[in-house]
Amino acid sequence: MATIKDIAQLVEKETGIKTLPRHIERILEALMATGDFWQVSGNAHLPVPVVANAIKHMQEAGWVTVSDEKIELTPEGLKVAQEAGLSALPSYKCPRCGGRGIDYTARPDWWNQFKEIIQDRPEPIQQYDQAYVTPETTISRVLMLDQLGDLRNKRILVMGAEDDLTGLAVALTGLAKEVLILDIDERLINFDNHWIEKLNLPNARAQVFDLRKPFPEEWLRHFDVFITDPPETLMAFKAFIGRGVAALKGAGSAGYFGLTLQDSSMARWQQLQRMLLDEWDMVITDIKQDFNEYVPWPYHQETKAQRLAPVNVGPKDIW
Amino acid sequence: MATIKDIAQLVEKETGIKTLPRHIERILEALMATGDFWQVSGNAHLPVPVVANAIKHMQEAGWVTVSDEKIELTPEGLKVAQEAGLSALPSYKCPRCGGRGIDYTARPDWWNQFKEIIQDRPEPIQQYDQAYVTPETTISRVLMLDQLGDLRNKRILVMGAEDDLTGLAVALTGLAKEVLILDIDERLINFDNHWIEKLNLPNARAQVFDLRKPFPEEWLRHFDVFITDPPETLMAFKAFIGRGVAALKGAGSAGYFGLTLQDSSMARWQQLQRMLLDEWDMVITDIKQDFNEYVPWPYHQETKAQRLAPVNVGPKDIW
Repeated sequence: MATIKDIAQLVEKETGIKTLPRHIERILEALMATGDFWQVSGNAHLPVPVVANAIKHMQEAGWVTVSDEKIELTPEGLKVAQEAGLSALPSYKCPRCGGRGIDYTARPDWWNQFKEIIQDRPEPIQQYDQAYVTPETTISRVLMLDQLGDLRNKRILVMGAEDDLTGLAVALTGLAKEVLILDIDERLINFDNHWIEKLNLPNARAQVFDLRKPFPEEWLRHFDVFITDPPETLMAFKAFIGRGVAALKGAGSAGYFGLTLQDSSMARWQQLQRMLLDEWDMVITDIKQDFNEYVPWPYHQETKAQRLAPVNVGPKDIW
Repeated sequence: MATIKDIAQLVEKETGIKTLPRHIERILEALMATGDFWQVSGNAHLPVPVVANAIKHMQEAGWVTVSDEKIELTPEGLKVAQEAGLSALPSYKCPRCGGRGIDYTARPDWWNQFKEIIQDRPEPIQQYDQAYVTPETTISRVLMLDQLGDLRNKRILVMGAEDDLTGLAVALTGLAKEVLILDIDERLINFDNHWIEKLNLPNARAQVFDLRKPFPEEWLRHFDVFITDPPETLMAFKAFIGRGVAALKGAGSAGYFGLTLQDSSMARWQQLQRMLLDEWDMVITDIKQDFNEYVPWPYHQETKAQRLAPVNVGPKDIW
């Protein structure tokens, strides 16, 4: 009969991602609370391929049944979990702020205007691997910047991921000295510039730019703050963050970026953290898990994550 | 006339702590929002000696007036701040969870019992440099452990700082496989053991222990989780965290500890982070600023921080 340890070894062998018995336990703990594959992957804080592969082996071992819709622990699976002393992972997220710790309604002017503007926002397209976060998330990012002293009278560079409209939300405050928004998707840049012009925000501009290209001289050592959400490979991370760091004035400047435990393993997090400390001489001051909540996106069926997933439904809820 | 840059240089020279013009700006931003020295030091995210020394020089430059009670920007100081494009640091902390992101009332049973028990808790004494956090903070720590899968059926080591009663709060849940609480203060250990016995919590025990001493063999590689709040020197950090890491089973285990930007500079944070990654092969998964709120403690007049402070009042409010 398969054990938790056996499954950890199989998963590590087949995915090439370091997988501990404790990780398999975390998947079982998450499965005790929900049958939604996407929630399981999120709550277990493990990469999607690890969770998908582990569930395949759990299915073979008779621990779970998998339908198009959901995953269920069998009596056998429940017994394995209970014998290992596991129980359902609870959630104590603050219901008011969604666990981000920031009151997104604290600036009703910003919140209301942003909600108004996003009514005709560009929808995500797969060509650029887009999926946008909830407006609560976007506004909380702006408030976090402001609370940490990185908004008012600052020069701010927003690099990609503008489907979240973070750059536009920063610009809307009118408080930054300069906002430069870069994205490869012309639809987003046009959308931003439309509002920048309409609302007369002379300090902001949006520009189509492929972030794989080097920056022009005038952007180097020019900004106080960068914001980005790099694709989660070591190469992309190095390119995006490296470019962001080069655009900063120097000591006392700050960078904000997104990183997940669903797309990157703990081992990759460690590599990235070493890079931040050693290559760029930075210090890590804040890491907020589950800050970003994603709105289900239309093309989820065709993503790599969906192909790996053992279920045929995309995320139903904010993820 | 003194400039922001001049003051940064003077402070760096006199305190020996790296101080940038941006740091002096942060102090001015904090002073634009409050005249409470302790709030300024907290909000500026800077070490107490830096803030105290900077305010001394600001006073000499005529930017602030300092009374026994508070610090006020003069018209001259306000002008300097405004010309540098500074404005008051806002706070958007979620009012429900205090910015921790955790609903501390989510387990009313734990919350109510803890509030009951702390009515006759031992008061902080200076001999051990004590100052305890609010009960909301202590319970949020327990909920955070549970939410991250580090409570149920786990072996948990709580190393010092038991004036917060974190170990007792963990024990009260009855969910851990083992709770070992160590502290040098016999009053706290007796208090914990009184409740452990009264409430019949056979998995928990508290023991007087001086954390400068080596651990007995049976504690090594034995625990799933450690919790500590080391004195903020590099030596103490190395000793406490190193001892905690040695007590963990290995990969998949977790450590929780407190660290501030008031007692440790960014440069020291960076050294500590390098230690975590390189010496102990750990990865940093969560950093929550302002998680800990302290209750004003009775002997504040006699602390080193108070001697450095330009005002004669201790923290009036949770800090």
